[in-house]
Amino acid sequence: MTIRTVCKVDISKPASEQPTPVHNRWHPNINSVATVLPGELFKVECIDWTGGQISNNDDASDIANVDLSQVHYLSGPIHVSGAEPGDLLCVEISDVQPIPGNEWGFTGIFARNNGGGFLDEHYPEAAKAIWDFEGIFAKSRHIPGVRFAGLIHPGLMGCAPSQELLETWNKREAELISTDPNRIPALANPPTLKGAWMHNASCTHSHGHDAARTVPPREHGGNCDIKNLSRGSKVYFPVYVTGAKLSMGDIHFSQGDGEISFCGAIEMAGILTLKTEIIKNGMALYGAKNPIYLPGPVEPRYNRLLTFQGISVDEAGKQFFLDATISYRMACLNAIEHLKKFGYTGYQAYLLLGAAPVEGKLAGIVDVPNACATIGLPLEIFDFDLTPVSGGPIVHNLGDCARVVGKKPSK
Amino acid sequence: MTIRTVCKVDISKPASEQPTPVHNRWHPNINSVATVLPGELFKVECIDWTGGQISNNDDASDIANVDLSQVHYLSGPIHVSGAEPGDLLCVEISDVQPIPGNEWGFTGIFARNNGGGFLDEHYPEAAKAIWDFEGIFAKSRHIPGVRFAGLIHPGLMGCAPSQELLETWNKREAELISTDPNRIPALANPPTLKGAWMHNASCTHSHGHDAARTVPPREHGGNCDIKNLSRGSKVYFPVYVTGAKLSMGDIHFSQGDGEISFCGAIEMAGILTLKTEIIKNGMALYGAKNPIYLPGPVEPRYNRLLTFQGISVDEAGKQFFLDATISYRMACLNAIEHLKKFGYTGYQAYLLLGAAPVEGKLAGIVDVPNACATIGLPLEIFDFDLTPVSGGPIVHNLGDCARVVGKKPSK
Amino acid sequence: MTIRTVCKVDISKPASEQPTPVHNRWHPNINSVATVLPGELFKVECIDWTGGQISNNDDASDIANVDLSQVHYLSGPIHVSGAEPGDLLCVEISDVQPIPGNEWGFTGIFARNNGGGFLDEHYPEAAKAIWDFEGIFAKSRHIPGVRFAGLIHPGLMGCAPSQELLETWNKREAELISTDPNRIPALANPPTLKGAWMHNASCTHSHGHDAARTVPPREHGGNCDIKNLSRGSKVYFPVYVTGAKLSMGDIHFSQGDGEISFCGAIEMAGILTLKTEIIKNGMALYGAKNPIYLPGPVEPRYNRLLTFQGISVDEAGKQFFLDATISYRMACLNAIEHLKKFGYTGYQAYLLLGAAPVEGKLAGIVDVPNACATIGLPLEIFDFDLTPVSGGPIVHNLGDCARVVGKKPSK
Amino acid sequence: MTIRTVCKVDISKPASEQPTPVHNRWHPNINSVATVLPGELFKVECIDWTGGQISNNDDASDIANVDLSQVHYLSGPIHVSGAEPGDLLCVEISDVQPIPGNEWGFTGIFARNNGGGFLDEHYPEAAKAIWDFEGIFAKSRHIPGVRFAGLIHPGLMGCAPSQELLETWNKREAELISTDPNRIPALANPPTLKGAWMHNASCTHSHGHDAARTVPPREHGGNCDIKNLSRGSKVYFPVYVTGAKLSMGDIHFSQGDGEISFCGAIEMAGILTLKTEIIKNGMALYGAKNPIYLPGPVEPRYNRLLTFQGISVDEAGKQFFLDATISYRMACLNAIEHLKKFGYTGYQAYLLLGAAPVEGKLAGIVDVPNACATIGLPLEIFDFDLTPVSGGPIVHNLGDCARVVGKKPSK
Repeated sequence: MTIRTVCKVDISKPASEQPTPVHNRWHPNINSVATVLPGELFKVECIDWTGGQISNNDDASDIANVDLSQVHYLSGPIHVSGAEPGDLLCVEISDVQPIPGNEWGFTGIFARNNGGGFLDEHYPEAAKAIWDFEGIFAKSRHIPGVRFAGLIHPGLMGCAPSQELLETWNKREAELISTDPNRIPALANPPTLKGAWMHNASCTHSHGHDAARTVPPREHGGNCDIKNLSRGSKVYFPVYVTGAKLSMGDIHFSQGDGEISFCGAIEMAGILTLKTEIIKNGMALYGAKNPIYLPGPVEPRYNRLLTFQGISVDEAGKQFFLDATISYRMACLNAIEHLKKFGYTGYQAYLLLGAAPVEGKLAGIVDVPNACATIGLPLEIFDFDLTPVSGGPIVHNLGDCARVVGKKPSK
Repeated sequence: MTIRTVCKVDISKPASEQPTPVHNRWHPNINSVATVLPGELFKVECIDWTGGQISNNDDASDIANVDLSQVHYLSGPIHVSGAEPGDLLCVEISDVQPIPGNEWGFTGIFARNNGGGFLDEHYPEAAKAIWDFEGIFAKSRHIPGVRFAGLIHPGLMGCAPSQELLETWNKREAELISTDPNRIPALANPPTLKGAWMHNASCTHSHGHDAARTVPPREHGGNCDIKNLSRGSKVYFPVYVTGAKLSMGDIHFSQGDGEISFCGAIEMAGILTLKTEIIKNGMALYGAKNPIYLPGPVEPRYNRLLTFQGISVDEAGKQFFLDATISYRMACLNAIEHLKKFGYTGYQAYLLLGAAPVEGKLAGIVDVPNACATIGLPLEIFDFDLTPVSGGPIVHNLGDCARVVGKKPSK
Repeated sequence: MTIRTVCKVDISKPASEQPTPVHNRWHPNINSVATVLPGELFKVECIDWTGGQISNNDDASDIANVDLSQVHYLSGPIHVSGAEPGDLLCVEISDVQPIPGNEWGFTGIFARNNGGGFLDEHYPEAAKAIWDFEGIFAKSRHIPGVRFAGLIHPGLMGCAPSQELLETWNKREAELISTDPNRIPALANPPTLKGAWMHNASCTHSHGHDAARTVPPREHGGNCDIKNLSRGSKVYFPVYVTGAKLSMGDIHFSQGDGEISFCGAIEMAGILTLKTEIIKNGMALYGAKNPIYLPGPVEPRYNRLLTFQGISVDEAGKQFFLDATISYRMACLNAIEHLKKFGYTGYQAYLLLGAAPVEGKLAGIVDVPNACATIGLPLEIFDFDLTPVSGGPIVHNLGDCARVVGKKPSK
Repeated sequence: MTIRTVCKVDISKPASEQPTPVHNRWHPNINSVATVLPGELFKVECIDWTGGQISNNDDASDIANVDLSQVHYLSGPIHVSGAEPGDLLCVEISDVQPIPGNEWGFTGIFARNNGGGFLDEHYPEAAKAIWDFEGIFAKSRHIPGVRFAGLIHPGLMGCAPSQELLETWNKREAELISTDPNRIPALANPPTLKGAWMHNASCTHSHGHDAARTVPPREHGGNCDIKNLSRGSKVYFPVYVTGAKLSMGDIHFSQGDGEISFCGAIEMAGILTLKTEIIKNGMALYGAKNPIYLPGPVEPRYNRLLTFQGISVDEAGKQFFLDATISYRMACLNAIEHLKKFGYTGYQAYLLLGAAPVEGKLAGIVDVPNACATIGLPLEIFDFDLTPVSGGPIVHNLGDCARVVGKKPSK
């Protein structure tokens, strides 16, 4: 009657020595580590996306020096009996939990020259916040004044690409890179043997030259970082290879829409409870080219969203045409400015927008030339009231997040 | 004890003959039509954004031939006693209602050569849906199978710009236009006397040459098309001129995030009940450069969102860099494809995504090179079940939306 | 295209002179005032339940001297074409609104010797609060510190009883009365010509001797005072006579579960928008003996319910057996005691529990000998924080509700 | 950094051999098993309320023969440093989880002659349903057609009574019992050595003669069976003895309001994560005589409640005076009748109302002589649509729940 754990991890060991082998690239030829039947309930354990590179301390040096060629370490692939190319694989995320005894996670701002992030022009240095889990809640000694229920979810999940789809990815991304090959941060990351790990050295060596990196979300889903893919959600994934070869990882205790600081979610190791169902020929029957999902019924009820707007005019006053990315960027900067008035440093506020359950929305996308995007902060998660009042904000003593020790931080 | 109506409309009359004069441009020199005190509850009536150009019939010719130089007709400006530049003007939207006896609205797809929209490359022709209001619900003879509670709101609200801010707008938009001045649809729309109306001919003539068009949302708010700005919301608007000069209009019975078909909301005339409060020097105290808002407590509880993803790779397979606009566009196309499998025409589905309370979100914005955006359709509003099941969708007989009569429509 | 109003009222006129006749008793022989078709959208206007006996002032004398033999004035009956005994009549409450220009309501505590209420042993005097409607919100000069969105609904709705059902009601209630015929307040109220009104003097005289009083909810629904029967709800009513003969009234802007002070809701005149559907033979098909309902999708999102418990041991310490009425009574007294610590008088708190959207629940009903009932107060509706904190409550200056002028009130 | 588990259980062992001693009576002299500091996060493991008497099988004999003198087995008491009589002890239920590897629970209907329940006159026989947990969801082979997210909670929690309070309880309950001492089921259960267990034989023997039974909720909270006391809730408990002596147990994976079949919740062993805070002198400061609680932010979003009404007229047609217990009983019977039309047996439906997250409310409690109570069933949890439609219900093949094997069950 006990639920079978098909992928096991040992967080005291390096990624290359996990009880069930892990991988950090997408390739159709990575062997399955387990087989499940449709309808079967099973568990999958996952290490954190960096493979244990980040420590529970007050020094952001590990974030500054992170080796991003290794990410994301994934559990799987899992062979689902009967799944064939063209099917939709419905995966119910029946539960997501931290690993008992390991109730903490981290949020990072990567340095601009090693990873970067959404606002790296404003916040170019590495920073870190450690979060402690108090049951369903997270709080951080690095970002006081806020505590919230986690909308816990896997940031990354998807089926293996076919060889043909893999080649499409590599080709189109190479074309983008070629438009500005020396850009820092890079426009995209091509396949590379460096840092690659596909269960063992032999598989890694065989497929590392064309195995796709895991950072971008793609047609198969992958690193979608959809914060609402939490307990009880169902996802309908396109299947490209026999057995589907489902992989997953990048567990987040919580995340804000957009995961703006790149390592913005509360990253952790965790355990998924899953159940699958096959919809034969579902891709054609429903015209599905990307995953479709239904959120679960237990999302936190945070309704009082103090919401900031942004339009597609950048900091320099330059007008862009319906550029929702710039709109959201400006909305985030507006929210950070507001938080700073209450005593947070900009780095704290930036970390918070990545980690807390903030809502990022596309309000208007057709009113030329300005797209309007919004970011909503749930008032219920703060110890103090963020709404504007006559007399102005009360400034709190909120310290700072973790920085690289020994280096003088900017504000 | 009766609540004062400070702006009255007569929907049987043209925009130029309204009981309280209306205007369709932004300019600091448009005279206020009324004065209110902070804390005072008052009502504002508004005509629809086109000034009555669209009729409740089954012919989309009026949409095809709409005169967009006239939009948006706004009520106001309203002088708020005591408001001064630098303040934040908190406006509570205490209620929004249709005009009794006029319980209908329209959603349009503008023709590509006269207005266009988010998906005009795929849906270049004019189309229309008429919605009937059944109390809090809307349904359409042109889009059967769906009925939903309206998240009723003003699409457009904001304070008058200062002369300086107005010049900033005009300058930056002119620069954008100059990069491709002959584009259809245009990149932006410069000030023009054609179609302008600012209370009367004299004011129009004096200020029409530099008065800003109302389509784009800007720093002051304006046409933000935020669907959650519904009953009970509070908005904190920056104030740029003495008395704030608050204007508003573009009432929507409902809208989907993004309002993708441009005339995508359920457009109508309506009545706002409002209340204001001044936060002295609020712009500096809170670092506010754009409006901030808090949604109200009575939003419809539609939680089962069937959600479609899009990434920043366009229909041709071209890879873009973290372009959330393309991601949302692809998510919308995915949702439309799904709806078509159940019997809707593409035009019906496109109209529906603009009008129904769909959620448009920014899931991931940092996973180079792909931004991930999502659009969520509330399953509760459909007569049939949209979730993927084994065996595939049941095709319903759902007719079509209104097209230009006498012209053979594309599907 | 305009929606037909089938019952019209004029709140400046007495109940006996309404444009469409009203009635205040249940009897199968009251003639229908209008006929509607299934599927037809129509409006029904209603006067307040007392027929205008209560005034918008600061004197509770009208409450003290209210004539309860007249209540409740109802609009209808409405004949629904095709409805027959044994059917279920599905009524959608498409909308509920106050009458324009009349945006206020009242909550009363009846004197113990004229009506009484749930806590009349503790609060035996008449008291009143006037509420002003600010769009979707209500606030009261008599109960400062609180403002909330109305969960607006008809307190009373149902189909006419058959003669046989009417006799059952009269018989069983007479038996109850006979167990303590002189009790004050009475155990139940028998038919009486005094105060009766059934459209006109002739009908009143003919049927007043056995027409049932409207206060109790019964098999047909009637005065259920279900606060969640708000905008967008559907109710399935048993039909007992040809044409259903649907009547309704007792419009509430808001109410707490239990409506504890009897005149506890925010009482008002109002306008219903309705739509019906007939389920032939539905009573037998579904085994329905009482109405069934589905709440609508736009209920206020008040989730932070500070909840007080009560058990079935009364104030004197006497133990009762699973008596949920006593449990709820004790929970209410506990909530009132809490509110008093913040500065409210007991009468204000009692009024507030009847009028605000508080949740009254049956927690445990089997744990002999104590039933556990709870009452939850939404924290979001108060200007100050009601949660217990170290140091104790801050006492606010909250005045008092309206009392009988010239009489020294008890606290 | 690991969270301390202050009470450990071993579900393979009998109640008397648990690693941390358990108890099944309330008495101030039961020694504390652990000490915690205010603000400290800690875990408490609990066995199921019967101490393992019920098995995961298809035979209800264990339910029929259950020894109720043993219930409820509780973990604790826990000494909270600094808590003194008169304080309020705020307990945050930071998390509640099943015991890993033991993902199942049971719901039972006790036989009328051994425990009984809310509807035992209609359903006098023992019955059982076993529930399997699929992550956050529960489903039962004995009640097909339904699956729901658990609103997991401790059914029982509270601080030890003072000797004086204990004597008050015993006295008042004895008085009730004396009114009908031979009633089956009993009106209340007096202290008894039989079945008592207070950590060890010595303590049991010393205090068994006056230690209170755990079934009823009382002033201290105790067996309140409040289904919303789930993850993230806070409860403010009165403190009567030094150190508070907090005990808890009776973990429920889910429960309907009222827990109508007595063993109506989904009973299980489980793990609580808790955190305490002391509000000095809080009982007097807030006038608190019973616990106060605030529900957590992650309750399942089940909003479409098909709601059945009941009034205080019993099955025989007898009229009672504002008796909410009878009203709720009639509402439950109405809901069961509805469910039976879809293919459930009455016993299945009765079990379901105890176990599923149904809402039991007090609608009207003052409309003499009828109280109106309601029970709402969330439509989202059923595989088929429960709403009434033309043509009537579709009957499903839903089998039956577990009965006593070898005995012919009634329907």
